[in-house]
Amino acid sequence: MKIKRSERLIDMTQYLLTHPHTLTPLTYFVKRYESAKSSISEDLAIIKKTFRQRGTGRLETVPGAAGGVIFTPEMSYEEAKAIVLALCERLSEQDRLLPGGYVYLSDLLGEPQLLKQVGRIIASRYVGKKIDAVMTVATKGVPIAQAVSYYLNVPFVIVRRDSKITEGSTVSVNYVSGSSERIEKMELSKRSLKRGSKVLVVDDFMKGGGTVNGMRALIEEFEAELVGITVFAESTFSGRRMVEEYTSLLCVRDVDTRTKNITVVPGNYFAD
Amino acid sequence: MKIKRSERLIDMTQYLLTHPHTLTPLTYFVKRYESAKSSISEDLAIIKKTFRQRGTGRLETVPGAAGGVIFTPEMSYEEAKAIVLALCERLSEQDRLLPGGYVYLSDLLGEPQLLKQVGRIIASRYVGKKIDAVMTVATKGVPIAQAVSYYLNVPFVIVRRDSKITEGSTVSVNYVSGSSERIEKMELSKRSLKRGSKVLVVDDFMKGGGTVNGMRALIEEFEAELVGITVFAESTFSGRRMVEEYTSLLCVRDVDTRTKNITVVPGNYFAD
Repeated sequence: MKIKRSERLIDMTQYLLTHPHTLTPLTYFVKRYESAKSSISEDLAIIKKTFRQRGTGRLETVPGAAGGVIFTPEMSYEEAKAIVLALCERLSEQDRLLPGGYVYLSDLLGEPQLLKQVGRIIASRYVGKKIDAVMTVATKGVPIAQAVSYYLNVPFVIVRRDSKITEGSTVSVNYVSGSSERIEKMELSKRSLKRGSKVLVVDDFMKGGGTVNGMRALIEEFEAELVGITVFAESTFSGRRMVEEYTSLLCVRDVDTRTKNITVVPGNYFAD
Repeated sequence: MKIKRSERLIDMTQYLLTHPHTLTPLTYFVKRYESAKSSISEDLAIIKKTFRQRGTGRLETVPGAAGGVIFTPEMSYEEAKAIVLALCERLSEQDRLLPGGYVYLSDLLGEPQLLKQVGRIIASRYVGKKIDAVMTVATKGVPIAQAVSYYLNVPFVIVRRDSKITEGSTVSVNYVSGSSERIEKMELSKRSLKRGSKVLVVDDFMKGGGTVNGMRALIEEFEAELVGITVFAESTFSGRRMVEEYTSLLCVRDVDTRTKNITVVPGNYFAD
């Protein structure tokens, strides 16, 4: 049975979306649909155009024998800004204020649609950069790391503050918790990161930057390379921050524990 | 400018895949593409057919004024079995054996492509059941919960063994750790689960079932309802398991600490 163009377009779209950042040879599709290479090329041109017009991402064709097609998810500045502005509203809800001036985020970090958006926004920031792994610290950083990892199509690794037998041998570092100035310890399973890996660090919240700084030290221990740091939300910090270069999607600018007002603005992702 | 069928098919496929289990009125697409309702209906029929033939999932049209279209991701028994058989091989790798007979899983639980597959397999098990939330326990259950949550399109909640100020008020339960017979404590943020919610429990590994049993107690505390339990891997357990009804994708049948041989077979997901 001959497969129609319409069916190819639907299934190719499905395939490309679920295999981002993966070079797929055109021969794969030729075989999958038992269609001519010229037809597949035409299909890809239509998908490329539609993905660009709808802001889904970039489809690139790599010519040559080792060539193929790569889909890179992207999100436009405008779409990202609209999503983050809506998030600012949600983060400002008064009942999010916890004792000590903390902001409750756990519900947001468990919403699949929101995580997909956040993953796409963060991944868009690193388009064109070589990244081998996403790193975060347990527990609340994990959903962000996984969301980003889905769009970059690279593994994520979880640094832990507690030792677990199920991790095998680990490498640990001590770090200064920025906000409390206490010395703490974090560790990562030895086999989870290869020497020379290019690592993107993500986390849910940054105050003094101590945790992120700890992950930086851990990356050095592994003789790996830090590519960038992006946090879901940062809060204004009165002391000297331990990390200078980072990207934030949201910034908790002010917390008034008396009136329970939380002021949230877009983070430095949108600064330039 | 008139939008062609081919472009509509590509963008609709993208939209449906990223909005599973969501009723979208046809008028949404009519507006989005400035096309006639009859054309949209024809498009959906083509997508429905292709999704079914390729095993992507089920597309259903709900008639009437409050109607629309719903996409339910599915995976065939054969595809799921093939994925799990490949996983059995990977889990049997000798260097996964840790002191105490534990099996190293962290690398697998950080692979985005694998997590997508596992999420789809588990979600397929509950097609047609009403689920309001996915529950797991920190840390290693989180990637599984998030993967399932993406396909079911419901939030996931994370039970913790350690108390964190950023969670606000919590409800806690004591539970007997099945393998060590110790009394431990787990807790969940009070606001993270509504009374009456239908909850699916997932976890990475089950031995005696103590942790899963703790989550069951927690669900009762919240006056919510347990819909089902699925674990990524179970291990054969010599004592009496604390949980009778559960689904496992993989079963670690035997661990020989002397020869370092790990025997892994498909779990009871494939039993019937």
